[in-house]
Amino acid sequence: MEFSVSQIASMLGGEVVGDGTRKINNLGKIETAGPSDISFLSNPKYENYLYTSQAGAVIAKKGFVAQKEIHPSLILVDDPYTSFTLLLEQYHQLISFQKQGVEQPSFIGDKSEVGEGIYRGAFSYIGHQVKIGKNVKIYPNAYIGDNVTIGDNTIIYAGVKVYSKTVIGSHCVIHSGTVIGSDGFGFAPQADGTYKTIPQLGNVIIEDNVDIGANTVIDCATMGSTIIRKGVKLDNLIQIAHNVEVGKNTVVAAQAGISGSAKVGENCVVAGQVGIVGHLQIANKTTIAAQSGISKTITEEGTVWMGSPAFDHGSYLKTYAAFKKLPDLVKQLRALEEKVLNLPASLKNNEY
Amino acid sequence: MEFSVSQIASMLGGEVVGDGTRKINNLGKIETAGPSDISFLSNPKYENYLYTSQAGAVIAKKGFVAQKEIHPSLILVDDPYTSFTLLLEQYHQLISFQKQGVEQPSFIGDKSEVGEGIYRGAFSYIGHQVKIGKNVKIYPNAYIGDNVTIGDNTIIYAGVKVYSKTVIGSHCVIHSGTVIGSDGFGFAPQADGTYKTIPQLGNVIIEDNVDIGANTVIDCATMGSTIIRKGVKLDNLIQIAHNVEVGKNTVVAAQAGISGSAKVGENCVVAGQVGIVGHLQIANKTTIAAQSGISKTITEEGTVWMGSPAFDHGSYLKTYAAFKKLPDLVKQLRALEEKVLNLPASLKNNEY
Amino acid sequence: MEFSVSQIASMLGGEVVGDGTRKINNLGKIETAGPSDISFLSNPKYENYLYTSQAGAVIAKKGFVAQKEIHPSLILVDDPYTSFTLLLEQYHQLISFQKQGVEQPSFIGDKSEVGEGIYRGAFSYIGHQVKIGKNVKIYPNAYIGDNVTIGDNTIIYAGVKVYSKTVIGSHCVIHSGTVIGSDGFGFAPQADGTYKTIPQLGNVIIEDNVDIGANTVIDCATMGSTIIRKGVKLDNLIQIAHNVEVGKNTVVAAQAGISGSAKVGENCVVAGQVGIVGHLQIANKTTIAAQSGISKTITEEGTVWMGSPAFDHGSYLKTYAAFKKLPDLVKQLRALEEKVLNLPASLKNNEY
Repeated sequence: MEFSVSQIASMLGGEVVGDGTRKINNLGKIETAGPSDISFLSNPKYENYLYTSQAGAVIAKKGFVAQKEIHPSLILVDDPYTSFTLLLEQYHQLISFQKQGVEQPSFIGDKSEVGEGIYRGAFSYIGHQVKIGKNVKIYPNAYIGDNVTIGDNTIIYAGVKVYSKTVIGSHCVIHSGTVIGSDGFGFAPQADGTYKTIPQLGNVIIEDNVDIGANTVIDCATMGSTIIRKGVKLDNLIQIAHNVEVGKNTVVAAQAGISGSAKVGENCVVAGQVGIVGHLQIANKTTIAAQSGISKTITEEGTVWMGSPAFDHGSYLKTYAAFKKLPDLVKQLRALEEKVLNLPASLKNNEY
Repeated sequence: MEFSVSQIASMLGGEVVGDGTRKINNLGKIETAGPSDISFLSNPKYENYLYTSQAGAVIAKKGFVAQKEIHPSLILVDDPYTSFTLLLEQYHQLISFQKQGVEQPSFIGDKSEVGEGIYRGAFSYIGHQVKIGKNVKIYPNAYIGDNVTIGDNTIIYAGVKVYSKTVIGSHCVIHSGTVIGSDGFGFAPQADGTYKTIPQLGNVIIEDNVDIGANTVIDCATMGSTIIRKGVKLDNLIQIAHNVEVGKNTVVAAQAGISGSAKVGENCVVAGQVGIVGHLQIANKTTIAAQSGISKTITEEGTVWMGSPAFDHGSYLKTYAAFKKLPDLVKQLRALEEKVLNLPASLKNNEY
Repeated sequence: MEFSVSQIASMLGGEVVGDGTRKINNLGKIETAGPSDISFLSNPKYENYLYTSQAGAVIAKKGFVAQKEIHPSLILVDDPYTSFTLLLEQYHQLISFQKQGVEQPSFIGDKSEVGEGIYRGAFSYIGHQVKIGKNVKIYPNAYIGDNVTIGDNTIIYAGVKVYSKTVIGSHCVIHSGTVIGSDGFGFAPQADGTYKTIPQLGNVIIEDNVDIGANTVIDCATMGSTIIRKGVKLDNLIQIAHNVEVGKNTVVAAQAGISGSAKVGENCVVAGQVGIVGHLQIANKTTIAAQSGISKTITEEGTVWMGSPAFDHGSYLKTYAAFKKLPDLVKQLRALEEKVLNLPASLKNNEY
């Protein structure tokens, strides 16, 4: 994916100063960019970087005139930061949907349908009766089980495993190594100390615009569906247990775990390494601090929680500050006890 | 996998009321079941659900007569709940062992043997001198290294990686993305600040009836074997380090970690995100609460632990309740200090 | 990989006592070794093990004479422990680099180059414009994206996923299921409650002599590079977020997580399940205890941290000891309050 400086300038409606034929294939910071990178100069106080920059091109503000000789070609626009961000997004889109066609060998089962614009990487596996929308990208070594449905413009990176009956929406991104639809962890204790498997017959439903990081796991429901609502963002190495529901636009950071049948509301923020006990409800707009453990249902919207087990964030901070002074507190109590003990004998006699 | 209502009725020894030719391919809850699902009505107080249910069939008690017109066909049996559970288990078995034969391309090395009834998915890899029992299912993109042994009726889901020399028993289930037999984390510090690799030459032994979730890791032993005993149930994203032994029928929840050479007893329950320090012994029937950290050997059977580092669960709850009141405690101590300070001058003179 | 006892003896410059033709293919402990294993006897107090050992061969000290009939052949050397360690390392090297050649089917894209001595397992995928050094081992089902560079003597185990533009050094080992270069977790909140993806255009750089465990994830940088410096050792199931830098010879244990843009110094020890907040700096030689949470920059070298949020390790231990006695402390305070309350009425009148 390579563009000339002139091509980029015309995409941005900008004007080229310098060599327009240079080839650009990446974006970078002005201080570290190389000859095939484009960067931007928005804040005049960083102008000095321009004079030493090795960038192939730099986006600058209309009217800007370099005070010395410079290496980069310039593209002059009304708002360099906005133009650069636009470029960043377009470039990212292009890169993300660049792959097309079918590499061999790859596998597709009976009665499966794929839309136009698909990429099926080598060693990718699509089972039977799978329905895949337009412009979907299935990277190498990915596995899509039987009866799965995937919407348009979704990207499944290398080595993702999607169990049968999973439903994935449109405009989703699922990173490598993530597993969707594995059996929920359900075992019934028997009298002899062994466990009997509780059959897991449900599935996972992932709605539109969901992003999922790498090596995350979402288990299928025992019956019914584990559901990840529209716009949810899941980071890496997260555990989502059977029958969980994660509400619209909720963000979950890496290594957090949500136990079976918990319902997390909309627009929540769950920080890294958080644990949520099974069967709880978490109200909308709840924020949970890193490494916290949620052990009871949260009914009030917009609260912040910390600790394991967690309670109100502000109280936790105060409590933890007191905790750090505990050894002093013990000393102060001992000193006071001593003081009271040393009260005159006449008083002590009165005590009992 | 599809059965007619009549076929299911004869499996259950039940009697059909209504259309016996309907095709059923899944099980569901009476309130959400669709036309190809079967459900059950056990408790009469849920009878109303029946009259709006869209289920293809419902299992009900002998003698039951619907008071209104209903959509589902009925299968009348002695004990609807037991019949449904039976159906659930049989259906789950059927589904789990449904795949058979060899999809192409797949790889099998020299001198490897597989039993009858095997499924080898496309892009599955079986190394050299591997021994695989009857009715084993190796899903697509799974990797089985050289000299591995796998017992009968074991299921290896898509993208599982099993390193060479691993021994896996019968009736095991290993979910996608799990890695078994990777090198233990052993590095000897050198004088210059670098680390030297300690060669990891052992293997992993997984006994019969073990279930392992998705994206879990079990490292091989430095020498000898990391051992997962009969009937152990491991959830997703668990870390089992080198030379660990997990005792019979122990259950470990998601994201827990067991460090090198620790020995966990039989019938223990290790909750989510627990950490266990290396080289410890954990007595049989120990329960460890979520997010706890075990830092010393537990010798007494049947105890419950909480906290990081963990101590007795009951004491922890009491201590944590006191912890939550720490800011009040500080205030109370200050008030008392003040009170003692304000004792009449005559007393204070006596103090020292 | 099989050697005769005589071959091993000549490698070690030792002398054979007994049958030199026996075939040895593994190393083990003297008490559990079998007929094709070699073991060692260094400390005379373990001599008794020799008389019951089933090992094929045992390395012992020059001049040693067995007092009874023994099963193992002996190899007599100056320093049995050193010889055994040497053998262990050489054997491990041999085993690790044993695989060679290209198994079919495997995939390699356009303009990609691989050095001599390569192993490309079946179903391994190498993208376009990839540069791979000498003696590199790419195990089955591994995925190497476009424009990746890998140095000499690096081992990529089965099912590793390396995203495009990643740079991996020489003498690295990356275990199964690990993902390198997945998108950083960057989403900008919008006014309507949804999130917009922040394009992640950087890469991951892994320097020489880095070992990475199984199912670990290293995200690419937003711009620039996420960097893992020379000699770093990462365990399993670790999260390394975008733009993180891990300094030379730092060791990170399983299930730890390092958030975006944090810089961890050289020769640090990060224990299991630790969390490090984003954008922090951690000084060289810092040690962080298991399950701790680092919430602020650490500037002083060589300190030890514990707790969540963490503070000085020694203070934490003292504080935690006081924490465990909190219920007693509450009782003591109550008792003291009672005592003060029961002071004679005359005193109480004076209090205010």
